[in-house]
This record gives sequence, structure tokens and C-alpha cells, in this order.
Amino acid sequence: MLADGDVRLVDPATPVFSAFDLAPTRGDGAFESLLVQAGQPRKVPAHLARLRRSATALGIAGPTSAEWERLIAALLAEPVETDAVLKLVLSRGVEGEAGYTAIGTVSPLSADILRQRRSGIAVVTLSLGWPADARAAAPWLLGGIKSLSYAINLAAGRQARERGADDVIFTSAEGLLLEGPTSSVVWAVGSTLRTPPVSTGILAGTTQQALFAAAGPAGLATETSAGTVAELHAADGVWLVSSVRGAAEVVALDGRTRSPTDLTPLVQRLTGIG
Amino acid sequence: MLADGDVRLVDPATPVFSAFDLAPTRGDGAFESLLVQAGQPRKVPAHLARLRRSATALGIAGPTSAEWERLIAALLAEPVETDAVLKLVLSRGVEGEAGYTAIGTVSPLSADILRQRRSGIAVVTLSLGWPADARAAAPWLLGGIKSLSYAINLAAGRQARERGADDVIFTSAEGLLLEGPTSSVVWAVGSTLRTPPVSTGILAGTTQQALFAAAGPAGLATETSAGTVAELHAADGVWLVSSVRGAAEVVALDGRTRSPTDLTPLVQRLTGIG
Repeated sequence: MLADGDVRLVDPATPVFSAFDLAPTRGDGAFESLLVQAGQPRKVPAHLARLRRSATALGIAGPTSAEWERLIAALLAEPVETDAVLKLVLSRGVEGEAGYTAIGTVSPLSADILRQRRSGIAVVTLSLGWPADARAAAPWLLGGIKSLSYAINLAAGRQARERGADDVIFTSAEGLLLEGPTSSVVWAVGSTLRTPPVSTGILAGTTQQALFAAAGPAGLATETSAGTVAELHAADGVWLVSSVRGAAEVVALDGRTRSPTDLTPLVQRLTGIG
Repeated sequence: MLADGDVRLVDPATPVFSAFDLAPTRGDGAFESLLVQAGQPRKVPAHLARLRRSATALGIAGPTSAEWERLIAALLAEPVETDAVLKLVLSRGVEGEAGYTAIGTVSPLSADILRQRRSGIAVVTLSLGWPADARAAAPWLLGGIKSLSYAINLAAGRQARERGADDVIFTSAEGLLLEGPTSSVVWAVGSTLRTPPVSTGILAGTTQQALFAAAGPAGLATETSAGTVAELHAADGVWLVSSVRGAAEVVALDGRTRSPTDLTPLVQRLTGIG
């Protein structure tokens, strides 16, 4: 954790959030999850830039990027032997007090994550209820902000598991594709990768952006495109991409098995996670 | 806090939530705010019943009502001299571990609360983006659940203050009335009190319900009714009602001053908070 800009390391079992902190009482803050590979955190500048954007949008004067980097370095000072997930949590802090709460943690990757990356995922589409343009017109709906208020995202995941699936693709009220609860959706039509526009209020995915930046040199075109569930069924490949799991191929969508695509090894190589 | 069903009291400055607890990291849990008057918590059964419904909907096996009541009694064992707010927070607990985290706090009422109860509030209407029927069809959107993921509710409050107002009435995508970020909306047409239906995904307001239950014997009729902002402008009285602030009269709506109503003392008396 960061206290007055200084790093303080505590045992994982030691509580760190006050009962009056607005993260546990109101989900009021922002977070990022980074993959640690061979002891090195990936895409640190992209994650810290998004965390800064989230904090600014929420009106939280959080740590500087240099302070976050000191926290990351301290968390990784002891060698991490396997791949791990590093989480950064920024809270508005204790209600009524100045300042903020800034916490970092490192955890091993779950077996589920590794299995889903390797073998793909069964996905259901669930409506997020909002028309695709609702959040762009209403900044208080926190479109594009990776906030700590993720109860709906987690409830959607539970709904997916109740239906025998692993994960979710949210759709808008009109049936347009949005994103996963913790991932971006990418699909291939021929040798073109597509993803929905951030004007729908979805997060700007750091892994989706890295994948698209690497796609051109590898011979793949990229497009930002409003898509539908029908287009996913017809696509040549569908993935949920995120920082920790990487590109997980969607092998079943709303109960219909998809034919595996031979693009997945390339997409995973381009994300740098595989 | 409750630990294995036993009450443990800690100093308010002592951190109580782990960095891996799903309340601070994901807003994954539920809460209630109770008013304490003359040392006595109000509407305990109604709040504990709603907390139980929230926990069940979230799939969190929280404390029993008897355990919560022991926590409340312990928190109020030392006399509370002025009115206070007692908060109960239930978290899904530490990620990957069985169990939950259950916390209670007692704080003095803010000066703002007392001023708003006495002098009324300026309110702006903000869209919550959802069609009025979106949440009833999609339980993962957590309609009717008082979850810890309140970042949108707080952001709406900041938006109101940026516009020079005190509070918000959320509307649906079609412009129907929903609720405040931390309150129910009630309006009077003649001697009839109206409030929107819970089928819109709003919370069942414990104070609104207590007010409506007390209204009949006091000569006021009550109705559950989809309403519009235009109907609020035309109403004979408008209030945001909640457990801690009670009935706060809306004295300005979207920048238009409302004529004060002489119903407010009666409405406040019927809520038992004034």
C-alpha cells in the first residue's frame, strides 16, 4: 500500500481498509489488473494511464504514476516464480477525510484462468440493459471507467456459470455487442479483427489495443465496428481478450459450439500471452 | 464486526477489510443504513429483512438476523448522545475463501443531513440509462438489491452538486421516475401520496413503506404509480425519503423553484423522523 506516497508492505492477512473507507462501503474507486510474467509486469504504462483516466473521471487525486511504479517494484522485489496477477486498487479513501487509499496485491493465477486460455471458453450473451448510446450522454453512468463497483459484472459471471458457461459477452438494449465483464470482445471476419467502439461506454481494453497494434505487421487488418450476436455466430473466430487471461477463444456461444479457428495461436502470440 | 458469529469491537481507525476482500476490490456485497434516535436503532426488522433479501439475491450466506442484532446491540452499548447513523456492511469476503465479512459502524449525522431535512433540497433529474423494465428481466443487473457497488449513485450526487443541487432523482430511459441515489421519491397529488413501482428495479424503501403504512390512518391515500418529471412539477408536494434523512422536501427541481407544501410536517411526522 501507499501511505503518504511511501510504500508500506504488509502481510496478506493484515487488514488494510478502514470500515469507513469508500471502497468497501460504496465501491467508490478504480482498479487495474496486470499480468506478471517471469517476474515482470506487462503493459505498465497502459494500465497506469487508464488508472489515471479512471481516477480523473471519478475526481480522485490518486498517486502519481511514479508512486504506483514504486509500489509495483516493491511488490515484485521478491522474485515471483510463476505467472501472477498484480492488482492495483485506488479508493476515494475514508469518508469525510482528505486523501485516498492505494493498495497493490500479487496473487498466483488461478487454474481456471490457465485452463480457459489453453482450451477456450463457453460464453453466454447477457443484456447490460443500456442502449448503446446511454453512457456517452451520461458521464455519471461511468462508461469507460474501470470502477470498483463490479457487482453487476460478477453477478453476470455467476449467471453464466448457472447456465453452464464460463463467461459473458454483454450486449446493449438494441442487441449490439459491448464487452465481457472483465474483457474485450474481438472477432475475426476473414483476416480482419473487429472490436466494438468505446463510444458504447465499454472500457478501452489495453490487451485489445496491444493486439490491434501488433496485428498489422502480422498481416491482419483491424476495424472498430458495432457488431451483433449474429455476426459473432458467423465470425471466423471470437475471443475475449484481457490482461491476465490473454486471448481466450470462444468455443461455444449461447449453447452453440463454434468450430475452432486456426487463428488463435497467432492472436495469442500477438497479445504476448500464451 | 462479526467473526465466526461473535462480535468483535475495534477502534474506528483499525483497518478491518483485507486487500483481497471482495467489498473493496469489487463492491461485491450489500449494506443497510439505519437511523439511531435517542440511542435506539429504528426499523431494525425492515432493514435486516432487506439485507437478507440482498444477501440471498447475491448468493452470500451472511450472518443470521440474530447475529446482526448482537452486532447492533454491541455497537450501541455505549450511549449515543445525538442522532447517529448505523451502517451494516456485508461483503462476500476474501476472494477464494469460504465465509463473508460483516461490519457495522456508528457515525454522527452530518450537518448537511440535518440542514436538508429541515430546509429541503434542490434536486436534478438524471437518467439512469435503463428502460424501466430492463432490470426486472435481467436479475444480474441487481435491481432491488442494495449492493455495495454504489459508484454510479455517488457520481450522480457529484453531478448534482456540480449543477448547484443537493440530490438526484433518477429517471428511466423513457423518462419515468425511479428513485434517488440513496432515497425513494414520493409525491402528493391532493391528499394522495404516490411512489414508483418496484418493478422498475428500484429498492423497496423501508421509509417509504413506513410512511405509506402510516398514511391511511392520517387521512392520506397512497398509490404506486409510474410517474414522470412533468408530474413532479405539477405535484402538490415532492419528497425524497430515506432512513437517515427522513423526508426531505424537494424545494427546487431541475432549476425550477417549487412552492413549499404544508404537507411536509405531516409527512415528516408519519416517517417518525423530524
